[in-house]
Amino acid sequence: MKKLILPSLTAMALCLAAPAGAQETAASADLSAFAKTADISYILNTLLFLIGGFLVMWMAAGFAMLEAGLVRTKNVSMQCLKNITLFSVAGIMFWLVGYNLMYEGVDGGFMGSPFPKAIPDPGSDAGDYSAASDWFFQMVFCATTASIVSGTLAERIKFWPFVIFTMILTGILYPITGSWEWGTGWLDAKGFSDFAGSTLVHSVGGWAALAGALILGARTGKYTAEGRVIPLPGSSIPLATLGTFILWLGWFGFNGASQLAMGTIEDASSISRIFANTNIAAAAGVVAVLVLLQILYKKIDITMVLNGALAGLVSITAEPLTPNLFEAAFIGAIGGVIVVFVVPLLDKLKIDDVVGAIPVHLIAGIWGTLVVPFTNADASFSVQLLGVVAIGAFTFIASGVIWYILKLTIGIRVDESEEALGLDKVEIGVEAYPEFGQGSARL
Amino acid sequence: MKKLILPSLTAMALCLAAPAGAQETAASADLSAFAKTADISYILNTLLFLIGGFLVMWMAAGFAMLEAGLVRTKNVSMQCLKNITLFSVAGIMFWLVGYNLMYEGVDGGFMGSPFPKAIPDPGSDAGDYSAASDWFFQMVFCATTASIVSGTLAERIKFWPFVIFTMILTGILYPITGSWEWGTGWLDAKGFSDFAGSTLVHSVGGWAALAGALILGARTGKYTAEGRVIPLPGSSIPLATLGTFILWLGWFGFNGASQLAMGTIEDASSISRIFANTNIAAAAGVVAVLVLLQILYKKIDITMVLNGALAGLVSITAEPLTPNLFEAAFIGAIGGVIVVFVVPLLDKLKIDDVVGAIPVHLIAGIWGTLVVPFTNADASFSVQLLGVVAIGAFTFIASGVIWYILKLTIGIRVDESEEALGLDKVEIGVEAYPEFGQGSARL
Amino acid sequence: MKKLILPSLTAMALCLAAPAGAQETAASADLSAFAKTADISYILNTLLFLIGGFLVMWMAAGFAMLEAGLVRTKNVSMQCLKNITLFSVAGIMFWLVGYNLMYEGVDGGFMGSPFPKAIPDPGSDAGDYSAASDWFFQMVFCATTASIVSGTLAERIKFWPFVIFTMILTGILYPITGSWEWGTGWLDAKGFSDFAGSTLVHSVGGWAALAGALILGARTGKYTAEGRVIPLPGSSIPLATLGTFILWLGWFGFNGASQLAMGTIEDASSISRIFANTNIAAAAGVVAVLVLLQILYKKIDITMVLNGALAGLVSITAEPLTPNLFEAAFIGAIGGVIVVFVVPLLDKLKIDDVVGAIPVHLIAGIWGTLVVPFTNADASFSVQLLGVVAIGAFTFIASGVIWYILKLTIGIRVDESEEALGLDKVEIGVEAYPEFGQGSARL
Repeated sequence: MKKLILPSLTAMALCLAAPAGAQETAASADLSAFAKTADISYILNTLLFLIGGFLVMWMAAGFAMLEAGLVRTKNVSMQCLKNITLFSVAGIMFWLVGYNLMYEGVDGGFMGSPFPKAIPDPGSDAGDYSAASDWFFQMVFCATTASIVSGTLAERIKFWPFVIFTMILTGILYPITGSWEWGTGWLDAKGFSDFAGSTLVHSVGGWAALAGALILGARTGKYTAEGRVIPLPGSSIPLATLGTFILWLGWFGFNGASQLAMGTIEDASSISRIFANTNIAAAAGVVAVLVLLQILYKKIDITMVLNGALAGLVSITAEPLTPNLFEAAFIGAIGGVIVVFVVPLLDKLKIDDVVGAIPVHLIAGIWGTLVVPFTNADASFSVQLLGVVAIGAFTFIASGVIWYILKLTIGIRVDESEEALGLDKVEIGVEAYPEFGQGSARL
Repeated sequence: MKKLILPSLTAMALCLAAPAGAQETAASADLSAFAKTADISYILNTLLFLIGGFLVMWMAAGFAMLEAGLVRTKNVSMQCLKNITLFSVAGIMFWLVGYNLMYEGVDGGFMGSPFPKAIPDPGSDAGDYSAASDWFFQMVFCATTASIVSGTLAERIKFWPFVIFTMILTGILYPITGSWEWGTGWLDAKGFSDFAGSTLVHSVGGWAALAGALILGARTGKYTAEGRVIPLPGSSIPLATLGTFILWLGWFGFNGASQLAMGTIEDASSISRIFANTNIAAAAGVVAVLVLLQILYKKIDITMVLNGALAGLVSITAEPLTPNLFEAAFIGAIGGVIVVFVVPLLDKLKIDDVVGAIPVHLIAGIWGTLVVPFTNADASFSVQLLGVVAIGAFTFIASGVIWYILKLTIGIRVDESEEALGLDKVEIGVEAYPEFGQGSARL
Repeated sequence: MKKLILPSLTAMALCLAAPAGAQETAASADLSAFAKTADISYILNTLLFLIGGFLVMWMAAGFAMLEAGLVRTKNVSMQCLKNITLFSVAGIMFWLVGYNLMYEGVDGGFMGSPFPKAIPDPGSDAGDYSAASDWFFQMVFCATTASIVSGTLAERIKFWPFVIFTMILTGILYPITGSWEWGTGWLDAKGFSDFAGSTLVHSVGGWAALAGALILGARTGKYTAEGRVIPLPGSSIPLATLGTFILWLGWFGFNGASQLAMGTIEDASSISRIFANTNIAAAAGVVAVLVLLQILYKKIDITMVLNGALAGLVSITAEPLTPNLFEAAFIGAIGGVIVVFVVPLLDKLKIDDVVGAIPVHLIAGIWGTLVVPFTNADASFSVQLLGVVAIGAFTFIASGVIWYILKLTIGIRVDESEEALGLDKVEIGVEAYPEFGQGSARL
């Protein structure tokens, strides 16, 4: 971080540059003082990956806060622990296994090479962007997928089985289905279209969560024998709200930087349009939930509103570029509608999804993927459906098998007395808010 | 997000580029490999709007946390709900009505065209930056204005009337006064100067809040019949602190990207200078409050310190470029002084401003606007005063009329028993912290 | 923020630009439409400082949340107050004294000039980046150093002596040792290598904190006469987790922008590689702590895990560029190991470090500095050791003297009854969570 070390090229260019005011003619000028389009594109594309990457990395904090706010006090430390752990594990597994499995030599097939790839030296890096910037950007997408799972299964899953599942999901499952499309595999060859991952990221996380929820079972006391659903309100609405805002912010990187290039004016315009569409879809998701809740219940459950924003965001993620603002608003609003109707439906099915990740990421992810042909003439409904089904079937079945093996071997669920006591006391030994006297209700 | 799709222009440029090491002379070189200044400027200007835009978007989370921390526990969920709602509503209204009302065909007049404008296709986008990036950047400024109102009126206003007011403020009121200056209307023609919105954003929000506070009345129990002021401390100082830090961070985008261009070294230098001045003004606001509180009260009320930072930021917003660092520190420090003296003054006048938004955004906003000629020779005090009065009068009167109509029609205030119970139970049904036993004091 | 004011150069360039489609030859083209490498580098270098700067500024919020979460409820407001105060004071002192002391005319010596330097006009700014952007970036590093101190000394130090120490640390101590290396002083001449500040920032903060902890003494009740260590759990694990995620995010700016240039493809590649290494080191720190805790204690103390991430980040900070990913993972993992073993060691020595800043910033900072030659052939172990010892000795002794003088004069510690009551009631008068009934345990 020395102030005086300067890139030699810059210094050289500075010396060689002709006086700025002069009307130079080409014949007399030294072109070495001028910037090459290829160099500028390389830098700007790389910068896009880095900015997009740190915004998506920040989404890990968003999931942590959203989930910490939506679980009960006795499980808040555990939820925080799971989120920082999964982000770390995802980074390591995607590096060791996933990245090449997803991107190296897929060529129309079903997966790439399972060996880690060294990041090239800055001096020998080539292509249209830095390989490390791409690695960083793709890695945070992989981590996002794992974040989705932790919310659904909160409050009753053991820590280490969750970590093992995360390792497999981020090292193997996500990269395999990812290779089908973004790794230029068979689905890409068929023309499947998923710009930033409504299916490849969000539905994959949702399917893995659903399989886990079915095998893990509901939290004790959530559904009574007589079929009543007992609300188990989350510990902190402001943390859940903060998490939602963080996710909303991060989504500009998630969708915007998925343009993958910023070296031309058309790319810069596309990224901008994606920002606008992403924001309108989230806003429409919020407004749709507000209006529906007011009509249906006369009270506005804020957790539904927060999930409405997220469902709007997931819905626009498969195609944030081609819609105009009206279409983006419509796509996002339907995401909000999904939340309002799917949350109670899951309860009816006794599928206990603690934070609402299944409606938000799975169902809205499917919706967003299927609606792509509505605004993008290059996509076809049948191929979109094929992609949704193929990726869904693979992820749901593979996840189910893994969850089931984990259940049979090391076990995935804490026992009932531990669940009653809370995971913080049992597995961590550090309570989230040790000094607050807790109300007796529902504990 | 496919890795392998590359912008064709880049690929082409790469092929055409001459060997990098060679000392090319212009006569032999192919210029198509070199970057045009206009293209680079377009991309960098657009990037500035996008980065500035996501930083200002993040301020919505800052207001949410600040306000959630400064209201009482029983109203925290409602404050969160209002903040995510207003950001959504502002985005939709500014798109449907506000943007063109503010910017389309104002030409020295009093407003533009009230019809929504389509965002152009990336392929046909033209000008010095992407139209969508500008739309995004202007939209988040509009949302900031609405955020200011929600804090002042917290803990007793009904949800839906607040939403309706937000729709009118963000769709009509803010765009009209905005058009006078940033839309090149009559005030701009007179030479009014408000770089990033001390008046156009912050005072406008402050006037709307003041009108609302007067018509809505104080919270029950805030002022006793004998004239005593009862402190009603906020629920969470760390959340209020977090909100302040978020706002401080976002302000670099707010002021810095208001330079509106990053394609020349002078623009880049200007943005940098704005960052430095913005930071020093906030820091000086903090220090001024610290010293004053120590002298006057011997105890340091942290909520005053947080507001001191914000008042410093608002103060420098009208002109963050021309001051040197000493002048910026002075301007920000007076912002802090305003907080220390105006907060108790409002209480004396029985104007109940829950979070201190009126001193911070209205009074410091006026101060920042009037002090512009002190460092910017192009501004005159009389025109600055004219702008402050004209925009203030319009916003205060129009807001007052709207609040009054809302009061007479659907009503704007919850009844006294509901206020005592808290808005979370009455309008949301979801408590902010359901498991924490609450102390009996002041509930 | 007027939409229509455009940089004249851009507009001019736009007019002069030749038709984009044409295959121009140099002989017929007007070169004034093309971008100079030097101009682009200036803008991109400046942009790097601004983005890196706002990310590191955001770390101030991270420290605030981390520390607010790790102190007890009765001291949370004070911890928030200290953090916003120190960031403000650091900005002012580094401007008034520190910046030039660190960078102006050091030339192989022991310090620079102690006079403030005006930030040049944007119109006259020159060099390879805007001077103000560099000032902003260096300032936030200085503030980070002060943040480290506040955590260790929490819960028993008086407010104003802490502020005075912060003024001296940020205005004088940090800039002096900083000048030795980044100001091109004697250590730099010897070949000392500290890319982004494992020693210059983190260890310096750690030494200042250690000196303070020794002179201030442990919190009452932390160590019993019989030698038992009493746990005093922090008030909020989710806030501590949030703080850790904020710091992790900010570290991409801390390390990445310390490349100091983004105008060439090699610089952009280097920044990317730094991002990847930084992330892997943090992830490896987390995983190392997880595994060790499981083996040693069978329970996973989340505060250790959070500190493991931070220790991984500190460890990679001295050299985030030359390691490959395996080496980065190793360097970060040892950081995690340090946390697990040094935290109990400090307790054995009765050094009361409330948040674990000494293992994280001091010990891991030393580790990171000493391991540089492992991956960077330009560094030598003996010079690295010399730097660690010289900077450590200077900072520890100077800090100790200052703390001691403060202790003898105005006093640095609240009295025992005030400590029992909590700093929030005694010095601020505003409780952090006034409405939450507090459990009786450990209060």
